[in-house]
This record gives sequence, C-alpha cells and structure tokens, in this order.
Amino acid sequence: MLNEKLLEVIAHEGVVSIVTWSGTGAHVVNTWNSYLVIVDDKILIPAAGMRKTQKNIEFNNSVKVTVGSKEVMGHSYMGTGFLIEGKAGFIESGSEFDMMKEKFPFLSRVLEITVESAKQTL
Amino acid sequence: MLNEKLLEVIAHEGVVSIVTWSGTGAHVVNTWNSYLVIVDDKILIPAAGMRKTQKNIEFNNSVKVTVGSKEVMGHSYMGTGFLIEGKAGFIESGSEFDMMKEKFPFLSRVLEITVESAKQTL
Repeated sequence: MLNEKLLEVIAHEGVVSIVTWSGTGAHVVNTWNSYLVIVDDKILIPAAGMRKTQKNIEFNNSVKVTVGSKEVMGHSYMGTGFLIEGKAGFIESGSEFDMMKEKFPFLSRVLEITVESAKQTL
Repeated sequence: MLNEKLLEVIAHEGVVSIVTWSGTGAHVVNTWNSYLVIVDDKILIPAAGMRKTQKNIEFNNSVKVTVGSKEVMGHSYMGTGFLIEGKAGFIESGSEFDMMKEKFPFLSRVLEITVESAKQTL
C-alpha cells in the first residue's frame, strides 16, 4: 500500500497536510515529509500541538493525508502526490512512542495512522 | 493579509492543500505553490479537475488552504507555513479567467479564493 513511489516522495522535503473533521467542519494541520515514519502499514507522525486534530479524532477517527513532491516523477510529468486515507489515534507510551521520541524529542504524543488506502493522484 | 512572507513561500515550490467540506465529510485536493496567483486579497488557482471541491463549495463555500516551505524562515527555525481561510468560487469567464488561461492552458475553470485570514502557523 505504501509503495516505493511514496517512499521516494517522503525522501524529499515538503509540506504534509493532515485533514480531520467533526460535526462542526474540517480541520487541517501540517507537518513535514521528513517527519513521517513508515512502519508496515502505519504512518507515525510526531505531535507537539495537534490538539484540534486529537479532539476531532475522538469524535471521528477517519483522516486524510496528502503528501507530494515536485521532484519525483508522476504519471506523466515531474511532480507527484498521494492521498492517503486511514484511521488515526494518538499514542503516549510504548515502544513506538519511545522510538519516535528519540528521533523527535519535541513531541508530546505520536499520531499513528493506520493506512487504508494510498492513491497516487498525479 | 497576504504578506511578504507568504509571497516568499509561494516563490518556492511545494504542495498546496485545499480543504472543503460538506455534510458528508471533508475533501482535500492539491496544487503547487507555483500555481497560486495573488491578486489583491484573492488567490486564483487553475482548476482542471477539482469536481468534488466544486460540489462541496456549492454546498458550503468556506475553504481552508495550507501552503509552506522548509526553505523560508519561520518564527524560530527554517521552515514556515500558512493556514489561509476564505470563501471560494469557480469562475469560467471574464478577464481573470482569460489571464489565468494564458498562464495555465490546461485549466477548465479558475478557483477563486477571497481570503478572510492568513495565519503563519510556524
């Protein structure tokens, strides 16, 4: 699901968007491509703030994530991107938390996204 | 509202996210920093697909846009980003449409966002 092309994208720096929504509308928060850590079919992301994202996820744990790079070949031209859909949760302890905390000392929690689909959009 | 720092960001290439939402959830579509054209307090974006975005906007014309660059200085470190909120519409004719069509021959409509706020998030 998280294929070579996606790994190539996140090897380039860029802005990731993480979209959640509740009854009152959509929320979007950003992180960097270089902050994404892929473990099997999960994406781990360091969270310092992301309080509104966490609140939305307690209401509805569906999440949409976009990531891309103009420096990676797409279907027809240079530049590609992915729309990733999955279920999200925040973790505050355990081995994945410890591994992430070592990489990103600034985090207070880890946003864990279990990927359900990852579509190359371009 | 659309200040120098934001103009500096969009002078660097990167992925823009455009978030809309309706009763059935949030939708996110992407474009490139280099595709944004600023005219006064409006952002013009070439639209080729973006059909779901257009459908959502007919229901609710509020939109959230994120844009950033790791190569532009933020509040404390390299890397900054903006969350832009505004009202959106699609235009299919007129002088702005013609100007955009000349720059981006692939467009079928222009997504016009009237900016209400643009907050530097990092």
